[in-house]
Amino acid sequence: MTSTLNQLRRELESSWLNVLLVAAPLSWWLRQQDPASMWVFLSAAVSLVPAAGLIGSATEHLARRSGPTLGGFLNATFGNAAELIIGIAALRAHHTAVVKASITGSIIGNLLLVFGFSCFVGGLRNGSQKFNRTSAGTATVMLFLATVALVMPAVVDRVSFGSLQAHPEVIDRLSFWTSLVLLGVYAAGLVFTFRTSRDPLRGVPAHTRGDHMTTKASLLLLAAGTALTTIQAEILVDALAPALKQMGMSELFAGVIIVALVGNAAEHYSAVSAALRNEMTLALEISIGSSAQIALMVAPVLVLLSYAFGPPMSLVFNAFEVTAICLSTLAVAFVAMDGESNWLEGLQLLGVYVILGLAFFLIPG
Amino acid sequence: MTSTLNQLRRELESSWLNVLLVAAPLSWWLRQQDPASMWVFLSAAVSLVPAAGLIGSATEHLARRSGPTLGGFLNATFGNAAELIIGIAALRAHHTAVVKASITGSIIGNLLLVFGFSCFVGGLRNGSQKFNRTSAGTATVMLFLATVALVMPAVVDRVSFGSLQAHPEVIDRLSFWTSLVLLGVYAAGLVFTFRTSRDPLRGVPAHTRGDHMTTKASLLLLAAGTALTTIQAEILVDALAPALKQMGMSELFAGVIIVALVGNAAEHYSAVSAALRNEMTLALEISIGSSAQIALMVAPVLVLLSYAFGPPMSLVFNAFEVTAICLSTLAVAFVAMDGESNWLEGLQLLGVYVILGLAFFLIPG
Amino acid sequence: MTSTLNQLRRELESSWLNVLLVAAPLSWWLRQQDPASMWVFLSAAVSLVPAAGLIGSATEHLARRSGPTLGGFLNATFGNAAELIIGIAALRAHHTAVVKASITGSIIGNLLLVFGFSCFVGGLRNGSQKFNRTSAGTATVMLFLATVALVMPAVVDRVSFGSLQAHPEVIDRLSFWTSLVLLGVYAAGLVFTFRTSRDPLRGVPAHTRGDHMTTKASLLLLAAGTALTTIQAEILVDALAPALKQMGMSELFAGVIIVALVGNAAEHYSAVSAALRNEMTLALEISIGSSAQIALMVAPVLVLLSYAFGPPMSLVFNAFEVTAICLSTLAVAFVAMDGESNWLEGLQLLGVYVILGLAFFLIPG
Repeated sequence: MTSTLNQLRRELESSWLNVLLVAAPLSWWLRQQDPASMWVFLSAAVSLVPAAGLIGSATEHLARRSGPTLGGFLNATFGNAAELIIGIAALRAHHTAVVKASITGSIIGNLLLVFGFSCFVGGLRNGSQKFNRTSAGTATVMLFLATVALVMPAVVDRVSFGSLQAHPEVIDRLSFWTSLVLLGVYAAGLVFTFRTSRDPLRGVPAHTRGDHMTTKASLLLLAAGTALTTIQAEILVDALAPALKQMGMSELFAGVIIVALVGNAAEHYSAVSAALRNEMTLALEISIGSSAQIALMVAPVLVLLSYAFGPPMSLVFNAFEVTAICLSTLAVAFVAMDGESNWLEGLQLLGVYVILGLAFFLIPG
Repeated sequence: MTSTLNQLRRELESSWLNVLLVAAPLSWWLRQQDPASMWVFLSAAVSLVPAAGLIGSATEHLARRSGPTLGGFLNATFGNAAELIIGIAALRAHHTAVVKASITGSIIGNLLLVFGFSCFVGGLRNGSQKFNRTSAGTATVMLFLATVALVMPAVVDRVSFGSLQAHPEVIDRLSFWTSLVLLGVYAAGLVFTFRTSRDPLRGVPAHTRGDHMTTKASLLLLAAGTALTTIQAEILVDALAPALKQMGMSELFAGVIIVALVGNAAEHYSAVSAALRNEMTLALEISIGSSAQIALMVAPVLVLLSYAFGPPMSLVFNAFEVTAICLSTLAVAFVAMDGESNWLEGLQLLGVYVILGLAFFLIPG
Repeated sequence: MTSTLNQLRRELESSWLNVLLVAAPLSWWLRQQDPASMWVFLSAAVSLVPAAGLIGSATEHLARRSGPTLGGFLNATFGNAAELIIGIAALRAHHTAVVKASITGSIIGNLLLVFGFSCFVGGLRNGSQKFNRTSAGTATVMLFLATVALVMPAVVDRVSFGSLQAHPEVIDRLSFWTSLVLLGVYAAGLVFTFRTSRDPLRGVPAHTRGDHMTTKASLLLLAAGTALTTIQAEILVDALAPALKQMGMSELFAGVIIVALVGNAAEHYSAVSAALRNEMTLALEISIGSSAQIALMVAPVLVLLSYAFGPPMSLVFNAFEVTAICLSTLAVAFVAMDGESNWLEGLQLLGVYVILGLAFFLIPG
């Protein structure tokens, strides 16, 4: 028992990000003072960064101990657990616009911000960096499949029903079956990984370089991380509506930029670390893979789960979201195509992110 | 004479697909019973598969005997003869929505279904398969040119005239001149082939591995195949309207999925056979080349021919068709880009096809 | 002094294009006869071709004498000076539709017409031509960033405000900040060049193969070229409105095709010369680099300058322009992707240009 607690303590001390865990009790205290304060929202958002990180570390420790097959499965399932948990909380509170916006934001954030920043700082330190083109190709194709799945319902909705707000039964059926196809392809991707030991979607950070943990300690860490993420996600979602009013932000901007940033901080950290170590293939797999995982697994699972919480959520994203996802996918495909990156390409991707962010900020809510 | 008949008999026996020829007399008998039955439509559809195959075989026998220049020309002209014949029949009956839908369906079907299935089964048998990137590049560019030609009239129509249904004179003129440009580039592609002996658009199956046929037998086979295809196409088109009503399908779905499948069955068979033999370059040339041929030759020829049958058909495809063509082209470009394929990429292309097919099925007619 | 004049004379005699300089006094004379004649517009347009060429030659002479850093900066600044001067003249006369159309036309003209014609004639003379893929990749990414910047305001405008004509404050702010991002990335591109001596955007012709000029003569030539371009641009813009009426052309067509052709004639000449000498990397850098320079530097500078001349110009391009820019970028990316070109690919790009030009010609004004 002491050894388990020691392992957990060492793990918590291994990353300075865990200092941010103090934001969790802070959010509880703030909430008692004034549940409608925007500071509840902000402190809960900050606390989700290390909480998501705990799930990631625990998953990786477990994966390392379980051999490639089960380990790959664990990574593929828990790699974006935080996004999924936040999404479920928002879904239960019927904030479907925020759920979709945070899916969009996770996809474009991983592609442009995470991969772009990795290219930028990696390029500044290491000059021109090469990476595995096959990895880049497979992940890009996966991502593109997801893009198709997100574009087509929006086109059908807009053209057949004249508006992206409408929500007829045809759209629900299209979303339902499309979600099943995406999950099927995602499952096939896992089988592919196990058969070839080449991971098409490596959505999980390899940032825990510290000591190994026992399975027991890892499971305890996973449970604690999941519980904390769930609690903080509930607080975040509860505090969302008043915070938006106070900060003058739209649900779209909050979802695309803020919620998405929180959920992907762990990927961000691991990808940038890999880029600084001149391991661009890993940085690329983390960032593009995580994007694809959001689109192929998190998004369809949330669509299917939405049937449990009232009127189903569709896969119809709004025109800005569809445009942003398409443009980000193409931008990354062009950068990754030639198998090398430099700081200028990184800066260009960041430029695309800033332009998209500006647009999401300025779009009337 | 006996020898010619013997050759024809051997040819018919060389492919089990020809068993489906019995569907032709069946469709005649069914039509006598009840011309408005959906079974007439279905049996005519089935009979078109081997009928189109006969034209393909005959063309290839002739091409093999005529040397590369004339042979290439024959392949380029008769390679998609079945699609052209079906298109003309539908055009004469003023089913322009079906004509356009079957053009769309042939393009996306060859790209996603034929090439995707080739990657899938070829990858399952042979593992990761490599192919010639230059072939992939040239075919993709050809296809992209065609995409531009199909996108621009739709944008002009929609933005200038507020609806994709309108049909003003400007659109007709744009369609007419765009068709001439496409045919011009197609002709240049043929010249390129003859000069470099490298085929940018190899739209024709190489599936007749059997004995050689005399020119006389080949011409007889070509005539018989063309006649049968023409008759069955007429029956199909006649039975279309009642069949749609009985089956509750839209013209869009019938054209994009059913008619297109029938016309491309031969390409499907040849491409998949090539992929199983680990000749992925050939599979790619058949599928992508056939798509480009439909777009650069069949579509503009049908636009020009439409002037003979009443109000001209424009090149204005609807928003679903334009989106589906763009997405398919990009999907294949991303897969072909890196010069190798595996079963997962094949499955992903099939996934894109299923999602597009679902959308076409669910779109209200 | 005599030596300076001699150098200027030799420079003028070094290119047959300079014969077209007689169109300048001709336009002055025609203008005195009848300022509302379309011949004033046409002669001013013709005279701008050599006038722009003079700026280009002078810049290159100066660049060659100033070492790579200052030289690169000069090229990057004056490389598209003619487009900028014409743009300012049109902006001052509140012809914002023409300004945007000429930006669009310069981008697609450099990509499709200049690069396409280079591939075509280079391929006819030299067969299949190879070029540096890294150059192609970097320029394509730069260009794609610009595409995003031009797509997103149009989508926001159209979806949020229902029309591409509206001009609310949100759009102005989005345009303003997006312009700053573009200029920032452009500046970073210059820094990248100076640090790596590898030019990501080589927008300037290398066509003056003649004798070197003294700095004094070069500066004199630059001043003369700039002055002449400014005067002729004013005349062109003044004569625009009556000329459009007489020729029955829309502002859109005049800007996209005619004004853009005039401003890019120098790039056209240099790129094609390079292609004929089998220096396709240079041809590609000139054409794609010039496109990117227009989008990343000329367009944002014009947006920022517009605040000085009355109501600001936005970055909202119309649906045809956005579609044309996206399609052109993708077409060139597909051609450049495989690192080689042939005359057929050139012809295909020209085909895309003709189809887009047809659409712009037929769109009701």
